[in-house]
Formats: sequence, structure tokens, C-alpha cells
Amino acid sequence: MSTQRQGQMSLGAFLMETGHHVAAWRDPSTPANGGLDFKVYKQVVQIAEQARFDMVFFADSVTAYTGAAAERMARSDKFEPITLLSALAAVTEHIGLCATATTTYNEPYHVARKFASLDHLSGGRAGWNLVTSDAASEAGNFGRAQHVGHAERYERAREFYEVVTGLWDSWDDDAFVRDKASGVYYDPAKLHVLNHKGKHFSVTGPLNVARPPQGRPVVIQAGSSETGRDLAAQTADVVFTAHTSLASAQAFYRDVKARTETAGRSRDSIRIMPGVYVVVAATREEAQQKHAALQALVDPEVGLSLLSRMIGNFDLRGVDLDGPLPELPLTDSGQRSRQELLTRLAGNENLTVRQLYERIAGGRGHFSVIGTGADVADALQAWFEGEGADGFNVMAPTLPGGLADFAEFVVPELQKRGLFRTEYTGATLRANLGLARP
Amino acid sequence: MSTQRQGQMSLGAFLMETGHHVAAWRDPSTPANGGLDFKVYKQVVQIAEQARFDMVFFADSVTAYTGAAAERMARSDKFEPITLLSALAAVTEHIGLCATATTTYNEPYHVARKFASLDHLSGGRAGWNLVTSDAASEAGNFGRAQHVGHAERYERAREFYEVVTGLWDSWDDDAFVRDKASGVYYDPAKLHVLNHKGKHFSVTGPLNVARPPQGRPVVIQAGSSETGRDLAAQTADVVFTAHTSLASAQAFYRDVKARTETAGRSRDSIRIMPGVYVVVAATREEAQQKHAALQALVDPEVGLSLLSRMIGNFDLRGVDLDGPLPELPLTDSGQRSRQELLTRLAGNENLTVRQLYERIAGGRGHFSVIGTGADVADALQAWFEGEGADGFNVMAPTLPGGLADFAEFVVPELQKRGLFRTEYTGATLRANLGLARP
Repeated sequence: MSTQRQGQMSLGAFLMETGHHVAAWRDPSTPANGGLDFKVYKQVVQIAEQARFDMVFFADSVTAYTGAAAERMARSDKFEPITLLSALAAVTEHIGLCATATTTYNEPYHVARKFASLDHLSGGRAGWNLVTSDAASEAGNFGRAQHVGHAERYERAREFYEVVTGLWDSWDDDAFVRDKASGVYYDPAKLHVLNHKGKHFSVTGPLNVARPPQGRPVVIQAGSSETGRDLAAQTADVVFTAHTSLASAQAFYRDVKARTETAGRSRDSIRIMPGVYVVVAATREEAQQKHAALQALVDPEVGLSLLSRMIGNFDLRGVDLDGPLPELPLTDSGQRSRQELLTRLAGNENLTVRQLYERIAGGRGHFSVIGTGADVADALQAWFEGEGADGFNVMAPTLPGGLADFAEFVVPELQKRGLFRTEYTGATLRANLGLARP
Repeated sequence: MSTQRQGQMSLGAFLMETGHHVAAWRDPSTPANGGLDFKVYKQVVQIAEQARFDMVFFADSVTAYTGAAAERMARSDKFEPITLLSALAAVTEHIGLCATATTTYNEPYHVARKFASLDHLSGGRAGWNLVTSDAASEAGNFGRAQHVGHAERYERAREFYEVVTGLWDSWDDDAFVRDKASGVYYDPAKLHVLNHKGKHFSVTGPLNVARPPQGRPVVIQAGSSETGRDLAAQTADVVFTAHTSLASAQAFYRDVKARTETAGRSRDSIRIMPGVYVVVAATREEAQQKHAALQALVDPEVGLSLLSRMIGNFDLRGVDLDGPLPELPLTDSGQRSRQELLTRLAGNENLTVRQLYERIAGGRGHFSVIGTGADVADALQAWFEGEGADGFNVMAPTLPGGLADFAEFVVPELQKRGLFRTEYTGATLRANLGLARP
């Protein structure tokens, strides 16, 4: 690299039931009921904490996946993430605890309150992944015949953010004096009633939780559309994103940092963390064997269903598995950027439908690295030093095994190179990420 | 007692920030920031678990109390209860974990999911207190200019219950086979899609959580109006209630058990648990001293505000503290039954406004006992054997101190008399309460 970057990379552990590989639950090493076994999650998160990860992260949808081949996938029974993170807060000390909560089918008062409460429970380790709902089937669980359209979802998300952060600011940091002698519990001059009246929400406030230890829990976003990038530039502390090449990651990185500066914020006030799917072992051969063993467990029905879902829920049943991906209209769902990415990938590499679903069975279109600890560290270092990433959201193929492998083989290598911390230095997630307290 | 009752009483610990006494936070023994200190709650709940309580319980409102004298009360900063209970699940093994979630300003899918998730996290220890909102100020946090009226709130609550329990039943107990060899994760014949379409809610389902370990989390209710009693008789596992005399408790008990049978359910399928405010010590003198010390810390402004709130938010500022309670219209809020109870109490005993607020500064109109462990056990035994109660929701004046006193002085006395368990026998809250699995 021509210029040496200052600072170290951030690492998140993106956790998903039994692991990111669609056949993870069938792997002999994986507890098949891991998605609903707290003991397993406790073990997983303690592995991440011992490895000094900045945070763990859970995606979420407020709907059960019951589409094609659902009964052959481990995606229908899982913990609700805010309850799960709260339980994990009680058995960890340093690691950040982040989850998705949709702005499309929630009320901002509930979301503000739950993340503020989690931030207090954990001593300043909460993070909220602000999303607009990508699963149209969520609408039916909230009294709507039709999913809210893309533009309205983003408009609502922007206002939702204003309300939530306004509620977090209801009380000054030093509002609660709790003076036993005088009987004064809080200073009324340090209470701010929101009185928000907007197009989508009317919320009086104040919040019935003191200001969160982080000031505001960390706000994460993952939108890649123009609107999504602008929203992130204006409001996000962390951006999750998916790229298969360094060039694409660099272009995204440059674009979002520039938009952040245009929005009047410092480029260091936003951390860009692409997902990376990692299969790692002591030797390259072993890593390839692990990978192949998982791929061999992919049911074609499941592979096709996964692909269909990731390009916007188009029904692909009946297509020729050994032919090219058929032409499809642009989806209106939250999967639009993923659809574009996969269509480009299939075109560039002349992939058949089968090859395409095999490609996403693990990393779902994210950057994938299979190899030794040094191989993985080389790749992450190149992305980090090449300004394609400020850190990574690590996707383990299986849990807890795949994450334990990352902790064993990759983390020490990154530490040896000075690219990752050896001890937690900050008391909060925000501090560990190097972000200022708002 | 003429007839010896079978079985033992149930005990819940009704927890409230720094304790139930309105001046608890000013007591020298109480951590004034206890409402937002997880370490304090952990200690409190572990005291309750070591004493073999069936459950802990948190009330809740989705609004901050900012009325008159709010700045002199410890009621404005607290944990959101579902996040708090989830964290407590990770540091306890046996005790039930119950909280309020309003049906007035929530979506049933979210509520069903969070309590199902808590039930899995805790291995079958979750309980949901189904309420209609009593605080009109909640409306403003959810986009409504006016609070929903009493009749509509109950109609909505009834339908909310149908949706939530229907979602809990989305999957049969044995739906998730997770067979690694065949690749079948769940049996589609054991999935039930709700497809609820009603007046207030349209919810497709299914829930994205497997059936809760308890089948359904324990459903608690506390409504005392005619409508509230009927709803409880049809749907509740546990009823919380407030009475100041055994006669009143017995009348309520008979009435709700009769309504339960009319609704086609066994009278043993519902547990009636009045609240009881207990100040207990080694001697009567010590208990009276503890009580007096707390009463001396009540600010008159706070006392008046408390009274005002409990009779339906009528503004009482300026009334003669040493005169009788003025005549007031019947409130439309959820506090109607509390208003009736307090008006009756003031009339029966010729209480001044000051005497009335002193009376409720601790127990807020609940049964109150001040004395030794034997005194308290005598009172609870009389109510239990006299069929005024199947158990009690214990309100400690201060936390953790007041609950530790109950555990030290009252529990061993009840155990000695065979009225309370010495070890947990059931694996779930439902089992400990002696309730069948639905």
C-alpha cells in the first residue's frame, strides 16, 4: 500500500441463527436448534468478546419466512433480537450489542425506549440498525394489505430517526440529581419535551428513560440506493454494505464519505463496514474442505429459493438450473441493490443459476474469503488500507464453530500486524468504534 | 379457619424502581438510582428467587410521568420492562418474569413475539400483564390527540388477546424436527397461519418464533371494572387486584371465580393475587419505626400529586389538606376502580386529604400490613384460607431492603406453616403456579 492508514479496523460479528451458510444447521458441528438456544448464543457472543470484536449484530424481519423450501431452511424460529441482546448484556461486559428494528412497522417511541433501555442495561453498548422493511410479507402482520413503497419508506425512516434521536435527548446527561436531602429527583430545566408533529408521526415525549450512557445508541444503516446513501450520510454512525470486489467497495466508500462531508459531517464520523464471509482453517486445504462440505449440504430447492428471495422475491421455480439467470424487472423491495449486485455478478462471470446460488449459499453476495488466517488477514488489510472499508462485519459460516475459527486464526494475525486491538480501550461501543459522543 | 385449603399460596414480587413507597428513593438504605441500575435489579430478583417467589412483576406505562411534583418523585427514569426481564432471565433460573404491555398502544405481532422470545430465553418463565392504558398521556406518544375511550380499549384488548394467543399457537410443539440427514427443518403440516381479520387488527402470521416452552406465556390481568372482570374470567391465568379488607377481597374472589366458571373454565384455572404492601421487621416497634421514617420523608406536594393521579388525574392543588376529599366525577381512565376504592376508604374512615395521601404513600390503596413476620403471615394466611386470595403480589416499601426483609421474616414463617414452597417444583412459571399448559 502506498499510504499507511492511521488507526485500526473495527470488527462486528454478524450473527444469524445457526450460521450464515444456508446449510449450516445440517453441519455436524452445529447445534441445529441454535437459533432458539440461549446457551449457544451466550457461547457465541463470549467468543466474540474474548476476540475483542467491537460488536455483535443481528438482522431482523417481523415476519416468518414461509416461502418456497422454507421447511428445509433454519430461518423460521429465532429469538426477537432486542430481548436476545438484553439477555446477552447480562453475560458480557465490553462488546457492543446491535440489532435491526424496522422504521416501517414500528412506533418510534417504542424503538427509542427499547434501545435506550438496552444502552442503560449494558452500560453504553447498544446499537440500532435503522432499516426500512425489505420483506413485503411484514405488511400483513401490521394490518396493511400492501407493503409501503420505497420512497415513502425512506421518507418515514428519516422522520422516524428525528423522533427517536429527539426522544433520546429528552433529558440532559445531568438531569437526574436524586438529592435525598432536598427531595429533588430531577432538575426540570434539564427536561426537554419533544412535541414532534410531522407527516408520519406525532410524538409528544419525553422518553421515560434517562439519557442513554452513549448519549445516543450507535445508529447503523445498510441502505445502498441513492436515497439510502443520503440517509446514511446524514444520520448513520456505521454503514453496513455488501461488495464482491475491492473496486466496488472503494467506489462506495468514496461516495458515502463524500456525501457525509456534503451533509456537514466529518468523514471520520461514519464507519463503513462491508460484510465478509470467511471460511478459515489452519491450512488452505482444510478451509476448502470445510467450504466444500457445507456446499455439499445445499439442497437445490433451498438454493433456488434463497436466490429468488435475494433478488426481490421473483419465483424462479422451474428455471433451468444449468442455464443463465433470466431477465427480471427491477424490484421495488429493499433488495434492489442486492438484485443489481447479483445480476452483475452472474453476467460478469457467466454463471448458471446453480453456480449463482452456490455462490450466495454462504455469503449471500458479500465479499468471501476462504483460506488461512494470513490469507484472510491479507484480504482484510488490503480492503482496509485501500480505503474500501473502515472495518468488517464478519459472517461466520457456522455457529459457534465458524466464529471460533475466525477468533483463533484471523484475529491474532490482525493483532500481530497492528490492525486490530488486543484489549478493549473504550467503555462504550461508541468509544471502541472511535466515534464521538453526541 | 373452618375448612383447610388445599395447596399453597403463590407469591409475586411487584417491583417498582426504588420501592413502592413514594419516598423510598430518599431512604438512606436505598440506591437512589436503583430504577436504572441493573446491578440493583439483579440483586433484588436474586433475593426473590432465593425466597422461592413464583415471579417478579413490573408495571409499565409508555409515557414519562411529568405531572405536578414529578421532579420530586423517582418515577421518570426507568428500564423498559421487557428488555429488563430479558437481562434478568440470563442471571436467574427458576423465577417467573412478568411485565405489563399495553394493548392500547402496541401491535399484537410485536407483543406476541417479544413475550414468546422471553419465554424461550428463560426456559418457560414469561408472563404478560395484558392491560388497557390508564395514562391518557400515552396517547400523545402514539400520534393520537385523545386517549382511546374505556369501552373501545376493552374491545381492542379482547381482540388483541385473540391475535397474540393465536400467534403463539402458530407452530405445534413438535413442528421443528430439524433432521440433519433428510434436510427437513420443520414439518409444514404443523404450521398454522393465523389469517386474523377483525375490527381492530388484521394479522396474517405466522409468528417467527417456535411455540413458547409454556405453550403460552402466563397471561395476567388487573382490570376490576365489570368489563375488566369478564375479560379476566375469559382469558386470564392470574388476576392482580387491590383490596383494603378481607371482605372486599372475598367478594371479588367469589365474583371472578364464578365468572370464570360461567366462561366455561375451571375455577382453579385462574389465580387471584391481591397486592399487599408489607413493612416487616424483627419486632412490631421496629416495623412501625421503619414505616414512620418513610412517611416522614413524604413531601406534601408529592403526596397530593400521588393522590390526584390515583383517582384519575384530577388536579387537587389548592384543596385544604386537612379537609375531606372533594366530590369528583367518575373518571374514564383505567384508574376508575382505584378511584372508587379510595373514595370509599376516605368516606368510611372520615379521612382528610392528608390522611388519605399518607395512607396511599406506600401501598397506594392495596392491603397493607406492618408488623413482624408472624403478623404478616397471619394476615396472608387469613386471606388465603378465607378465600380472599390464591396468593399475593408483594409490594416492598424499599428495594432491595424491603424485599430482603420479607424474605428474611415472612417467607420462613409461611414455609413453617406449610403455606409456601421450600423448593421450586415446576420447571416453568405456569407449573409453579399450578396452571395447566395450554
